[in-house]
Amino acid sequence: MDHDKTAIPIEGGRFLIVGGASLVGSTTADLLLRKGAREVVVLDNFAFGAESVVAHLRQDPRARIVRGDVMRLPQLLAASEGMDGVLHLAAAMSISMDADPWTGLDVNIRGVQNILEACRANRVRKLVFASSNAVYGYGPGVAGDLVESTPFHSVGAPTGAVIYGASKIIGEQLCRDAYRRHGLDYVVLRYSTVYGERQHYRAANALYIIETLDRIRRGERPRVIGDGSETKHFLYVGDAARANARAFEAAASDVAVNISGPAPVTTLELVRLVTRLAGSDLVPEHVEPQAGRVRLTSGGAFRIDHSAALRAIGWAPETPMEEGLARLIRWRDAAAGLDAGGADA
Amino acid sequence: MDHDKTAIPIEGGRFLIVGGASLVGSTTADLLLRKGAREVVVLDNFAFGAESVVAHLRQDPRARIVRGDVMRLPQLLAASEGMDGVLHLAAAMSISMDADPWTGLDVNIRGVQNILEACRANRVRKLVFASSNAVYGYGPGVAGDLVESTPFHSVGAPTGAVIYGASKIIGEQLCRDAYRRHGLDYVVLRYSTVYGERQHYRAANALYIIETLDRIRRGERPRVIGDGSETKHFLYVGDAARANARAFEAAASDVAVNISGPAPVTTLELVRLVTRLAGSDLVPEHVEPQAGRVRLTSGGAFRIDHSAALRAIGWAPETPMEEGLARLIRWRDAAAGLDAGGADA
Repeated sequence: MDHDKTAIPIEGGRFLIVGGASLVGSTTADLLLRKGAREVVVLDNFAFGAESVVAHLRQDPRARIVRGDVMRLPQLLAASEGMDGVLHLAAAMSISMDADPWTGLDVNIRGVQNILEACRANRVRKLVFASSNAVYGYGPGVAGDLVESTPFHSVGAPTGAVIYGASKIIGEQLCRDAYRRHGLDYVVLRYSTVYGERQHYRAANALYIIETLDRIRRGERPRVIGDGSETKHFLYVGDAARANARAFEAAASDVAVNISGPAPVTTLELVRLVTRLAGSDLVPEHVEPQAGRVRLTSGGAFRIDHSAALRAIGWAPETPMEEGLARLIRWRDAAAGLDAGGADA
Repeated sequence: MDHDKTAIPIEGGRFLIVGGASLVGSTTADLLLRKGAREVVVLDNFAFGAESVVAHLRQDPRARIVRGDVMRLPQLLAASEGMDGVLHLAAAMSISMDADPWTGLDVNIRGVQNILEACRANRVRKLVFASSNAVYGYGPGVAGDLVESTPFHSVGAPTGAVIYGASKIIGEQLCRDAYRRHGLDYVVLRYSTVYGERQHYRAANALYIIETLDRIRRGERPRVIGDGSETKHFLYVGDAARANARAFEAAASDVAVNISGPAPVTTLELVRLVTRLAGSDLVPEHVEPQAGRVRLTSGGAFRIDHSAALRAIGWAPETPMEEGLARLIRWRDAAAGLDAGGADA
């Protein structure tokens, strides 16, 4: 498909965020509005999304919140009409995929197909598709630098996690297919584990932060599963939102890039950091993994390389873990003091 | 799931072959009947399957041919009633997936889900699921010995091929999920490219054999795409059928194994072998790949290791390429002399 790669300025642009009543969605909506978007439509079926995370958007006349489901093409057709860009975030993650693979596969595959059809019908100029480092898989094979050409490892991983990762691989390819067939510009962003204010309970990895904080606030020793040497690579939600905006703004298309935080941490480092930032001197206790619970483990130390994102869309992470966690803790403590707002568990 | 792994003797057993009006399906039906099966039901929607490849089964009162579609659960429920074992072959392959990913994904994912539901509802004792070495992917990463833990490579591969491979990964995991949830015993067989009598035109790799033969029979020089150094690893259909039978007979479950021929060949070796076996002295000509056509290439020399199958189900390939090709050529020449029977292109 030979054409100039579409760059959509945020200022004056009209954007639809599908699965937008979420951590990443609401933060991106805020950013797009702050950058002068003419219209931001948030579509969500509120199965996982929460009214509370988007309630503040109702103050802005340029924002609109629409109840809709990615499995219902007519709702997507209506919501995407006149849009310059669509950000597709709606997905079943590993935990949901484990509990209900039928629905999860429908959402992660047919949902993407429906989004692509809606974009095509309404001549949307660019789609940003939220993929995941789950496309590199899990288990002993996942180690070292993970770059965009790293293959998908699945040996030893739970079924829900493998299905999730493979469904994201398919979602990416469906975008590529729509580009090839219909010239629909797209950028795939492979987020690492997102954390930040309005944190939900849905992502297996990000849970670790919230659970640690919850225990500390109850005066209980934080728990480290195993020896704590396992690697996690987190991404602050504000950096994720910036990546989404950059993907629209940049003259990039037909590309998939990693979007990860400045550096990985071990789970022990993470628990110690949360403990310190929460102002506690509780000492972590090491516990055995719980049977039957979805855990996503890698083999050795790894790092999700985000240098391709700098080249493709001019993005790099800006928020160190310490700063992002401090913000999350402040938000969480404030929310706990007032109401349970923001957490949809 | 703790229970004894189910072994189903073929003799006296009742078997359903889904997608059975096919190269592998019809050959397996023949084998099961020869080994004393009490009943063999072949279900096919005849979209790719051909009446001609199963017509001979109508002579055997123990065989039954049913028109049905994997997307129609009631048809699967009816066909699988009372069955000891189900062999699930129905799938969209890379070429179909490239042409129509919506239908392909429905067949390869929802189709498997429907099969699993039918097996569960009818308390089928074991499912044999036809997967593919496509779960190791394509492109430069695919080289060396491919074992069951080899990850999925997709960089540089066509969308249809990536989607096909990922859909097979998901299909395997859905079997694993049904085993874990409901105790449904299963064996996944990852076939390499199957060739043999009743060869169809549907598999991108196997086409090479038929196209070579067709050119020779027309008196045209056979064509080698590129330099001919590319590796292919074929599997004779009789060996595939034996693997299916062994997967039922063996006390194996919750396992995925490679099913490949004795040894890989390069495309140049293959073309020369077909030419020689066809009794021709035509010299191959090297041509450039055709643009837009689905081609599945690997990076370097590779070999699909089938030693795990020996351990899990007591199977190893028996038919050298030379012998299998000679049989295919005899069949093809005989069919060409009589009618076009067997090829569904």
